[in-house]
Amino acid sequence: MIEKSIAVLGGDKRQLFCAKSFAREGFRVYISGFDRLVNYGDLISTDIYTALNNSSVAVFPVTGIKGNTVPVYFSDIELKLGKKEINALKDKIVFCGKSDTIKSLCKDICVYDYLACEQFAVANALPTAEGAVQVAMEKYEGLISGSNSLVIGYGRIGKILSRLLKAMDSNVCVSARRAEHFEYIIADGNKPLNTKEINTLNNYDLVFNTVPSLVIDKKVLENTDTDPLIIDLASIPGGVDFNTAKSMNITAVHALSLPGKCSPKSAGEITAHTILNILKEEYGWQKQI
Amino acid sequence: MIEKSIAVLGGDKRQLFCAKSFAREGFRVYISGFDRLVNYGDLISTDIYTALNNSSVAVFPVTGIKGNTVPVYFSDIELKLGKKEINALKDKIVFCGKSDTIKSLCKDICVYDYLACEQFAVANALPTAEGAVQVAMEKYEGLISGSNSLVIGYGRIGKILSRLLKAMDSNVCVSARRAEHFEYIIADGNKPLNTKEINTLNNYDLVFNTVPSLVIDKKVLENTDTDPLIIDLASIPGGVDFNTAKSMNITAVHALSLPGKCSPKSAGEITAHTILNILKEEYGWQKQI
Amino acid sequence: MIEKSIAVLGGDKRQLFCAKSFAREGFRVYISGFDRLVNYGDLISTDIYTALNNSSVAVFPVTGIKGNTVPVYFSDIELKLGKKEINALKDKIVFCGKSDTIKSLCKDICVYDYLACEQFAVANALPTAEGAVQVAMEKYEGLISGSNSLVIGYGRIGKILSRLLKAMDSNVCVSARRAEHFEYIIADGNKPLNTKEINTLNNYDLVFNTVPSLVIDKKVLENTDTDPLIIDLASIPGGVDFNTAKSMNITAVHALSLPGKCSPKSAGEITAHTILNILKEEYGWQKQI
Amino acid sequence: MIEKSIAVLGGDKRQLFCAKSFAREGFRVYISGFDRLVNYGDLISTDIYTALNNSSVAVFPVTGIKGNTVPVYFSDIELKLGKKEINALKDKIVFCGKSDTIKSLCKDICVYDYLACEQFAVANALPTAEGAVQVAMEKYEGLISGSNSLVIGYGRIGKILSRLLKAMDSNVCVSARRAEHFEYIIADGNKPLNTKEINTLNNYDLVFNTVPSLVIDKKVLENTDTDPLIIDLASIPGGVDFNTAKSMNITAVHALSLPGKCSPKSAGEITAHTILNILKEEYGWQKQI
Repeated sequence: MIEKSIAVLGGDKRQLFCAKSFAREGFRVYISGFDRLVNYGDLISTDIYTALNNSSVAVFPVTGIKGNTVPVYFSDIELKLGKKEINALKDKIVFCGKSDTIKSLCKDICVYDYLACEQFAVANALPTAEGAVQVAMEKYEGLISGSNSLVIGYGRIGKILSRLLKAMDSNVCVSARRAEHFEYIIADGNKPLNTKEINTLNNYDLVFNTVPSLVIDKKVLENTDTDPLIIDLASIPGGVDFNTAKSMNITAVHALSLPGKCSPKSAGEITAHTILNILKEEYGWQKQI
Repeated sequence: MIEKSIAVLGGDKRQLFCAKSFAREGFRVYISGFDRLVNYGDLISTDIYTALNNSSVAVFPVTGIKGNTVPVYFSDIELKLGKKEINALKDKIVFCGKSDTIKSLCKDICVYDYLACEQFAVANALPTAEGAVQVAMEKYEGLISGSNSLVIGYGRIGKILSRLLKAMDSNVCVSARRAEHFEYIIADGNKPLNTKEINTLNNYDLVFNTVPSLVIDKKVLENTDTDPLIIDLASIPGGVDFNTAKSMNITAVHALSLPGKCSPKSAGEITAHTILNILKEEYGWQKQI
Repeated sequence: MIEKSIAVLGGDKRQLFCAKSFAREGFRVYISGFDRLVNYGDLISTDIYTALNNSSVAVFPVTGIKGNTVPVYFSDIELKLGKKEINALKDKIVFCGKSDTIKSLCKDICVYDYLACEQFAVANALPTAEGAVQVAMEKYEGLISGSNSLVIGYGRIGKILSRLLKAMDSNVCVSARRAEHFEYIIADGNKPLNTKEINTLNNYDLVFNTVPSLVIDKKVLENTDTDPLIIDLASIPGGVDFNTAKSMNITAVHALSLPGKCSPKSAGEITAHTILNILKEEYGWQKQI
Repeated sequence: MIEKSIAVLGGDKRQLFCAKSFAREGFRVYISGFDRLVNYGDLISTDIYTALNNSSVAVFPVTGIKGNTVPVYFSDIELKLGKKEINALKDKIVFCGKSDTIKSLCKDICVYDYLACEQFAVANALPTAEGAVQVAMEKYEGLISGSNSLVIGYGRIGKILSRLLKAMDSNVCVSARRAEHFEYIIADGNKPLNTKEINTLNNYDLVFNTVPSLVIDKKVLENTDTDPLIIDLASIPGGVDFNTAKSMNITAVHALSLPGKCSPKSAGEITAHTILNILKEEYGWQKQI
């Protein structure tokens, strides 16, 4: 039965855990780009064309493809989208990150881009928050418990990270810009601060930035005469003047893609969960078991 | 100095605590409608006209006024807005709940209605959540810890209440309708449920409704053969078929206005805090001390 | 089969919930002193002699008996231990609070006194802590969240209550006397204080005493010029100078027997759970279902 | 003034942070064994004899000394206790781990051994618990949130670790042996289990052992057909059959000395805090500032 089969193509451990999730829900799963693995369990390892040809859904990595090549981490064989494969994609439901590339290869297909999916973004905020705590634990010589921490921004990650830090007994200050966010921060049991009033990082042991604009600029750093650990979670170029930080011997880490690095299992399961939800809501798919 | 004086007019304990908050921040505060009190502290008790005439801000109750009368709870004297008082209102910054009434009395003034203020609504969700827990403690013969609870809706109150119940070690299920809300609920450590899949209240000891539509209808109740405690927090008419509940001997409480009833001190301070924030943001007011 | 039957004799709702717990575990349960109830479920309502005669375990109230009378709350008929009943007790496993009275009636029997059982005491600390929070919510006009609270003593109740208050976002200070307790308090995320350094209650909104000696004495109260709410959980005579508190208009509540008052269901289940554990450990009883 | 000076001798970063804590409290602090450092702040770096001669308190590492040599990590010069230094020790208050060695060198002195101090042990349970979580985050490919975890033992570390895991939204089961501990575990919001009923690790993603006896033996491991991560926190030889685990491809980590490895700052501050408490309680020392 072609209809309820899914092809998982290339990628790192996340893709593998994603494929396993599909199998656990009872779908037939073809994988391609994982030859070096010894034990496939229920997964069917094959070449990319066969995988596509037997499936109605194609799952590419969250990090997308490079040109017509799908990145592989568990294979010595290149995974290429040639004419035949592109043709086979046409009637598939396709999931792919950074989807402009695949769209330019194959104009008629409908691609779901993970990054456009709010549910996917929220779901990944939890592994990002745990990953940020792990980085803090590794880099900071004190304890989370009893530390003074600042979380800049009260978006998806800021919300979840600030609550996690509080649960671990850090004294948490959260900066935001909207008056109603201040009230949610108070209801979380944390201290609110207006982002535009951040003038120094003194008084904080740990500073987590989630805002994609230069909040921790030269001036803020120069007003800081203590030694906070700065962890920037905002995507490139981030929200920290890293050069000034370095020149002042303030440790600033740009911590990106934490779900994939720290929790590939959860990250893969989130991908599977998001895809299955879309298949259920928009295509009426149900669990097979 | 007229400029930094505030008139607090009528109302219950919340207004009194609100007035005290203003005084604590260093403002001159005139109160009217509190004659029966013995000790005014820094507050200046006077008639409504004098209060208005000496102030640039007029604070009416969150519950609004009735016709041209301001409700009083600490006075035997009626508090009326006559022609003179209405005239005195014209150049004031006015705060009043259910503001249609006062607007119809005095057409030219600019009135801030608490209920239109998102910050005020969010701030009151916390005392509402604590009040809901208090009601549950009073009506339920078991413990919050270890109970199975359902919170219907993940808006302002649902968010804060579900986290509070979890902090108290209830096993919390939260119903919502949006896919990204499910992910936030998981990140809270609670179990998500689609609101439209609520068919029975079996398995729950405590059910809190926050959604202003008939979620707990006749069918849901008739599918329930246990004895949950239902606490409806949604404004009138609420989200529970109270008649069916009663006929089935299921306890259903319509718990409204919890901040004023359970935490008048906090409710009054929230009012003051909201007003001062507006005065600061829009009129440049600062603390006086 | 007499062997696996339990007689539950007299008492309030707790005893009723206790009896229901036994029935749920599959034991035959005779109750006496509950005539006014309409629906007994699986419980067998009968006179005290029949109940005893058919059971191998006799469960009297946690609050004990008065002379040879068992207190009843759901019956108009006195429940008396006459010669016949005392004789029937001889080969039973007996559970009774304040057991000196029953021991003096019937010298040869082995009575388990709930109060001598550490497990029972710890188990009741949780409903006591929740009950204390309920009293605080009812008497205090502010919120638990954001309040400053003091818990005096880090015994069973102090441990559980201080963690619950912190979970509800109170700023909690806990007093103790042993150095290692200070470290546990810090690990809880709370602030430690030496009990002998309590000189005033200023700075606290809520004060919970769990220590059965006069900690909040005249001097401490006279050094207090704010208006804290004091909740004394220590058994009579408690740890508060109530007369001085009253004369100073400081609200002090002596809150006793909270499990029975606030959570009779849980209190009864704890009694059943404790008894079943003793029957299992010492007599090899097993669940019947 | 010799009287209020402290000599901190050898050791790793913990000793350095310990020395800084003393300086922050206003004491004069001599350090020896830290020559490679560039910036000493208020600390006076000198040879061991001068340090001892000028101080009334001598602080050796928590890990003790080897023969007559004090281990150093920030110096190329050996730190030896020769005749002169041993003589200088005689009238000092000495703190040293594994104190048998120093006692055999210098028979008349009174040595406080950290490990004999309950306060020190409890205080270190918190960094041990955070360190255990860090190890789990690094080795486990999923999230702490939503994981199923087992904590074996409800002593100092078990208590604090199980609460931390719960705060991070793991589903925590805690094993213990005493009936009253089961009730505390329930009050923590976790699930109790009898240690002697651990027959398999199936159903757990994360297993933390704190009990210094072979709980996770060959039989338990052979009954396990999933892939849990085992973190053994019990001192050598630990409580896990590591050979069997290895042969079954179950990851088992023996994680020792976590405070020093993961949180040297906090570990050093705890050492200072413990010492100052003893100096205060037994010698009447006070902060100098």
